[in-house]
Amino acid sequence: MEITFRSIGTIHSPFHDLADMPIQPYGEASSPGTIEIYPDYSAGLKDLGGFSHIILLYYLHKVSSVQLTIIPFLDSEPRGVFATRAPLRPNPIGLSVVPLQKIEGNILFVDQLDVLDGTPLLDIKPYVPEFDERTEVRIGWLEHARGKARFARSDNRF
Amino acid sequence: MEITFRSIGTIHSPFHDLADMPIQPYGEASSPGTIEIYPDYSAGLKDLGGFSHIILLYYLHKVSSVQLTIIPFLDSEPRGVFATRAPLRPNPIGLSVVPLQKIEGNILFVDQLDVLDGTPLLDIKPYVPEFDERTEVRIGWLEHARGKARFARSDNRF
Repeated sequence: MEITFRSIGTIHSPFHDLADMPIQPYGEASSPGTIEIYPDYSAGLKDLGGFSHIILLYYLHKVSSVQLTIIPFLDSEPRGVFATRAPLRPNPIGLSVVPLQKIEGNILFVDQLDVLDGTPLLDIKPYVPEFDERTEVRIGWLEHARGKARFARSDNRF
Repeated sequence: MEITFRSIGTIHSPFHDLADMPIQPYGEASSPGTIEIYPDYSAGLKDLGGFSHIILLYYLHKVSSVQLTIIPFLDSEPRGVFATRAPLRPNPIGLSVVPLQKIEGNILFVDQLDVLDGTPLLDIKPYVPEFDERTEVRIGWLEHARGKARFARSDNRF
């Protein structure tokens, strides 16, 4: 089944190259940036300013291949792509939870971006701990990498 | 910019009607179910079984219109759609964090589904608190609805 979406905006960040980027939004290397919502959709931003954090879903537009098993940034073993956050997914949709600083018209000012400049935005959802947080969590192979993502940057592998 | 995705599997749940569904996965009304991954993609499931919770991204295939402002289930005022989790979004992508119970071949057994039977799956990501949880969170208009989603069910509004 083919599904067609349309970008609702563009993410602007200081990252112009897939290498040397932060690999997760909370990393030391992540950066403030802006999100431009296209005027057709700006009415949907009403009330969003009351939320401190938002979930961004975006199209990983520079990803041109799919790998079902990959060696992720924080590991040295091949892992199933669905057990990783790596970008070479069958449907390259990125997900980041970022702090929302302010909204001016159709421009969102956010922090902790780990997203390439010019990335097409698919959706924004409010981050709600009651819906999105879980306790008693096991994180499989990532257990041994705990804490490393904060300082890690990408290389050329994807 | 048009973006085309392809479903990688199908979500099977006891919910056959958009009305009377749980409105969030952790609700009292949510249900166990299965996720069938199409054989072409099953190699990507390697190592996923080590994670207790997974993030499902899916296509809200029964949503046929877009509303930029809507009255959400937990409220009586019109809100911008991006400040809600309502389905009538410009790009109808659903997001649920659910417990993964076991994997048998290309079938995932999960709990706490709030998803319509037959929903096309777009992506699975491991839920990693270090990446996905945030503290000191403000939740805007939802503040007064805190705790209500657990018992709420949908009606016919979407």
